[in-house]
Amino acid sequence: MTSDHEPQAASSAPSSGPAWEGSQLTALAARHGTPFFLYDLDAALAQLARLVAPLPATASVLYAMKANANARVLELLRGRVGGLDVSSIGEVRLACAAGYAPATMSFAGPGKSDEELREALQLGVGLISVESPGELRRLGAVARQLGRRAAITLRINPAHIPNAFMMKMGGQASQFGIAEEELEQPLRAALADPALELHGLHVYAGTQCLDAAAILDNVRATLTLVARLAGEHELAPRVVNLGGGFGIPYFAGQQALEVETLAPQLGELLTQAQAAEPRFAATRFVLELGRYLIGPYGVYVARVVEVKVTRGKRFAILDGGMNHCFAATGNFGQLVKKNYAVSNLTHPDAAPERQELVGPLCTPLDSLARAIDLPRAEPGDLVAFHACGAYTFSASPLLFLGHDTPVELVQHGGEVSVGRRRLAATHFA
Amino acid sequence: MTSDHEPQAASSAPSSGPAWEGSQLTALAARHGTPFFLYDLDAALAQLARLVAPLPATASVLYAMKANANARVLELLRGRVGGLDVSSIGEVRLACAAGYAPATMSFAGPGKSDEELREALQLGVGLISVESPGELRRLGAVARQLGRRAAITLRINPAHIPNAFMMKMGGQASQFGIAEEELEQPLRAALADPALELHGLHVYAGTQCLDAAAILDNVRATLTLVARLAGEHELAPRVVNLGGGFGIPYFAGQQALEVETLAPQLGELLTQAQAAEPRFAATRFVLELGRYLIGPYGVYVARVVEVKVTRGKRFAILDGGMNHCFAATGNFGQLVKKNYAVSNLTHPDAAPERQELVGPLCTPLDSLARAIDLPRAEPGDLVAFHACGAYTFSASPLLFLGHDTPVELVQHGGEVSVGRRRLAATHFA
Repeated sequence: MTSDHEPQAASSAPSSGPAWEGSQLTALAARHGTPFFLYDLDAALAQLARLVAPLPATASVLYAMKANANARVLELLRGRVGGLDVSSIGEVRLACAAGYAPATMSFAGPGKSDEELREALQLGVGLISVESPGELRRLGAVARQLGRRAAITLRINPAHIPNAFMMKMGGQASQFGIAEEELEQPLRAALADPALELHGLHVYAGTQCLDAAAILDNVRATLTLVARLAGEHELAPRVVNLGGGFGIPYFAGQQALEVETLAPQLGELLTQAQAAEPRFAATRFVLELGRYLIGPYGVYVARVVEVKVTRGKRFAILDGGMNHCFAATGNFGQLVKKNYAVSNLTHPDAAPERQELVGPLCTPLDSLARAIDLPRAEPGDLVAFHACGAYTFSASPLLFLGHDTPVELVQHGGEVSVGRRRLAATHFA
Repeated sequence: MTSDHEPQAASSAPSSGPAWEGSQLTALAARHGTPFFLYDLDAALAQLARLVAPLPATASVLYAMKANANARVLELLRGRVGGLDVSSIGEVRLACAAGYAPATMSFAGPGKSDEELREALQLGVGLISVESPGELRRLGAVARQLGRRAAITLRINPAHIPNAFMMKMGGQASQFGIAEEELEQPLRAALADPALELHGLHVYAGTQCLDAAAILDNVRATLTLVARLAGEHELAPRVVNLGGGFGIPYFAGQQALEVETLAPQLGELLTQAQAAEPRFAATRFVLELGRYLIGPYGVYVARVVEVKVTRGKRFAILDGGMNHCFAATGNFGQLVKKNYAVSNLTHPDAAPERQELVGPLCTPLDSLARAIDLPRAEPGDLVAFHACGAYTFSASPLLFLGHDTPVELVQHGGEVSVGRRRLAATHFA
């Protein structure tokens, strides 16, 4: 995986994910055109294996398909993950089409409609993570109508979340889960409703945590909380969903989590908890990971269409931008806009020069890298944005300004195939 | 257009756009489901007529289709606008499908590829707005290959932009246009290349200006700049593209531009300029408007799926959110996040209560209104977000979390028809 022309990430970019060969990406651009995403499932599956191996058999990892719902990615993860974390009935259908058994899915989301709940029960979705007292009542009613019992977890919004979680989904008033201190009544209601079968509890603290100690602390806190609630309500949870939030490095100075350290520590923590707490004797521990499983293993490649030097700045204008890779603009919840790691694939050895990398759209928002020091990009050069496997295609305004969607390529067994073809704007009209 | 249940915008919301009847929107929700957009082309066309009537015959208004590329919207504007401002070859194709003659299109964008330029010339796109010296060279080469002459405007990035333009697209180094002070060489090159036919100049200063005086000042400044350049280069421009940037009110305290005042003043300004400057004797003055023509006339309607009161806050969780109407989250270039005008259609007379309106997605970003004082929303209530006709469907991450796309309804002649049907996530797989 090294060559004279191996791309170097710009400046002090984080070293996560696969070291793409510039020559390979260049060949793919020639064959499939630009822009494209390439997801390296060989690397992703290897990392998944490193994560799962040290975990006890009672632990399972669900893939949060919201991160990247490409059908080929889903297919290749099938059998390697314990199932899927899904967030809409649309995701359930996409997952079924990719060969997943509904029983392996856990369905979360603060706004599940009655129709979604009904279809989920009819399809046999394994677990529904209930996020509010209202949803609990509605799900009970739907299940009764269908003459079924709904297997559920209750999602808890804990009172405290470690600061190391970049985007918090608990620890404050939010649409997610039931506040820890407000759980008493809904927990009793769940146990009292014969149409509901309480399998356990679910805590999703937040996302994008790069501090292994904080992740472990959070798991420990979750286990303590669940053990306390289980004791108070005389439960022996079949499932404890520990959430996820494992971060990946995007920016200079960020360090990847060391899976070789984190996974064994996590495994030990779960094993100890299971040994120490009789109520966990038959518990399955679930982790939900999306970004961590696919984010580092995706690259977005665009071609420089035009270069303009004006008023002292150099602009390299690409054939794709925020329409494909919105998160790279820094407008997707980031408090501070920083540049992703970028490579000039065509001229990796050119002298670094400060430049702006912008997309082709007619808006100043379409800026993928600001004042980045990168080997000088010339018209026709290919530029790669790293760590673009998650929340990119899935979370971008693809139709904006009517460009084609980017093709999504998937590498597996060393071979690259088309995971989703390029679609013209007219496809959506 | 009044009834007992006419929805009231929340708090001191701006009073722009049509006064939707709650009963009409409720009936549409029953018929087409939620979420949906409704675009009132009756109101939009009436406003367009008010704008155009006082303008001289030498002025024409182009619709910037990036704002809303719905095919039915395009069809209904056809014949009422002078043509289209397009920004990609994909938009050219969509516009052709909606019945527009390519000759009525002006094609802008900082990153037009050779392939796009070639297809535009082959189709006979009326004007190509060239944004850089590099594009000028490439377009000349493409035109020569095809044995055609390309009709162009040169887009100028002026040295100064009025502060009243919220999002500036000039006055600084940017990917847009050629800096005023760097124009000399490319202007000479355009005149010297026999494959290029310089029709005139194009200045697009910025967007979302609510200050009529600033708009008029900017037009005046543009005319002065173009007259000076025309004098220096002995040009008699066939076209002066004045850009757009007419704003619309989104937030409390913002006032709509008064078209009854602005349009006559603008008309007079153009008439005077034409009379005063011999080089403008045969000039066509072009305005490019997108948001202004359709933004106020769209409404986004979603249904409350769940209500949750937790930790002292009330959350109404809707069946659509940032996946359909991303701009309302405040993450689309807004410096300060403010709430759009919102109505509770089902309980317009309920006592106002402070609440959070959030979408169904599993991310804290999915917040459409924060701490808004609104008639208390209950499960099943319909909620309308106003001024959602532009940069909503077209600029949102529609696939995120796999929900169906919203149906787009179009009202014309008092009748409502489906402009784009609801599409399932599987349509895009």
